[in-house]
Amino acid sequence: MNISLEQAEAAITAAKEKAKQMNVLMNIAIVDAGVNLVAFARMDNAWLGSIDLALRKAKTARYFNMESGEIGKLSQPGSQAWQIEHSNGGLITFPGGIPLKNNKGEIIGAIGASGSTVDNDHAVARAGADAIK
Amino acid sequence: MNISLEQAEAAITAAKEKAKQMNVLMNIAIVDAGVNLVAFARMDNAWLGSIDLALRKAKTARYFNMESGEIGKLSQPGSQAWQIEHSNGGLITFPGGIPLKNNKGEIIGAIGASGSTVDNDHAVARAGADAIK
Amino acid sequence: MNISLEQAEAAITAAKEKAKQMNVLMNIAIVDAGVNLVAFARMDNAWLGSIDLALRKAKTARYFNMESGEIGKLSQPGSQAWQIEHSNGGLITFPGGIPLKNNKGEIIGAIGASGSTVDNDHAVARAGADAIK
Amino acid sequence: MNISLEQAEAAITAAKEKAKQMNVLMNIAIVDAGVNLVAFARMDNAWLGSIDLALRKAKTARYFNMESGEIGKLSQPGSQAWQIEHSNGGLITFPGGIPLKNNKGEIIGAIGASGSTVDNDHAVARAGADAIK
Repeated sequence: MNISLEQAEAAITAAKEKAKQMNVLMNIAIVDAGVNLVAFARMDNAWLGSIDLALRKAKTARYFNMESGEIGKLSQPGSQAWQIEHSNGGLITFPGGIPLKNNKGEIIGAIGASGSTVDNDHAVARAGADAIK
Repeated sequence: MNISLEQAEAAITAAKEKAKQMNVLMNIAIVDAGVNLVAFARMDNAWLGSIDLALRKAKTARYFNMESGEIGKLSQPGSQAWQIEHSNGGLITFPGGIPLKNNKGEIIGAIGASGSTVDNDHAVARAGADAIK
Repeated sequence: MNISLEQAEAAITAAKEKAKQMNVLMNIAIVDAGVNLVAFARMDNAWLGSIDLALRKAKTARYFNMESGEIGKLSQPGSQAWQIEHSNGGLITFPGGIPLKNNKGEIIGAIGASGSTVDNDHAVARAGADAIK
Repeated sequence: MNISLEQAEAAITAAKEKAKQMNVLMNIAIVDAGVNLVAFARMDNAWLGSIDLALRKAKTARYFNMESGEIGKLSQPGSQAWQIEHSNGGLITFPGGIPLKNNKGEIIGAIGASGSTVDNDHAVARAGADAIK
């Protein structure tokens, strides 16, 4: 199963609404099950450096089927996935990337959000993920 | 002047509607005046290779403030911009990229469409460009 | 708002003067609000490796609208933006990159300086930033 | 012998003056004898895609100690340097890049200009080259 554009746009809409409620400016990216870009939106005046971060967080989450921040715990000095960020053209392993599941629990893609603190980024990505039916 | 997300989303919506009317599947990318991604959408089952093409067409159109296909005329063997595609990380110089102007005629970004013949790609990008107010 | 070449050249001139006073040799880069290069100067015999560092510091500062060294504090092991340097084609997150603001406080670009210790790099970039009217 | 920053800045100043006389908007890059960037200037509203073109033209001219357009003649289909543009991270082989010589005829760097037709680009680069003493 793969995410549809309609699902991806619903996730972006929900993420944008959450960002407005939180008064933050976000970049939001959605990739499909094949780690290919489906949809993207940058809110006006959001950080330009977060275009790439949002995309990489989404990819990272789907590459390993876990939240991007979980991988960052494993990539610390002395940990088992030390410097895994060097793979796949560059991973981003702090929070803000979340796998997307359909109503059967199958992973159909991933969302990445970037534009504020990692807690805020994660909250916005979570709002987007929760909008997938 | 720079394109807003609202304008970019209006352009993508118009481009998608045009693609549906034409019965083609498109990737559509919008960059701002600084050549940074603003919005993107890939229609279900559209070519995966066209994700990158749509983005590069949009960038190419803004890099030189002309339609991407115009640059392709100049880059032919013996012509004045021979092999310009090697610049800027890789240009795409066939049709489907169009500068976006506001109602004062100022360039505020660009749109790129990819997923079918270049004539179809151009028609879809044009529909998106015409939706900008 | 976007930086003009005249403003960029004034910043480079001020940065070079500061560098001469400090008896250091600098590379100085200026990017605009869209993170595109506007002006650059390398003082005679300045480090060749600092050409790229100056450019990346300027880009990093504009990507996130903060001084490059602030991002480096966030990217340490265990911190929230661990390994952010892998994004955007490679960030430089130690001091020497500073956002440039106009007299209304709007960010219009960024400056990056590299060629000595990070304290010296930062002081030279600051002198350039302060020359913007 | 290597170009000084003072010489590079004189070349950029002369190139900008020529561009203003011709009513064109240029990006101008200067590299040294080691093919490393020395100075750069983008005139307000000049093509963003020409940042990279100006730099690559300058590099191409110094890589082979000839005007960039001469190499483009050799890279045409069936010619001896067919597709040489694939080397060195991407060459630009149409006019606008010129080696810079000191008053002894020694090559000390190169200049690249981009922003208009190749004839205009070449004329602006030539004005810059002629300013070197």
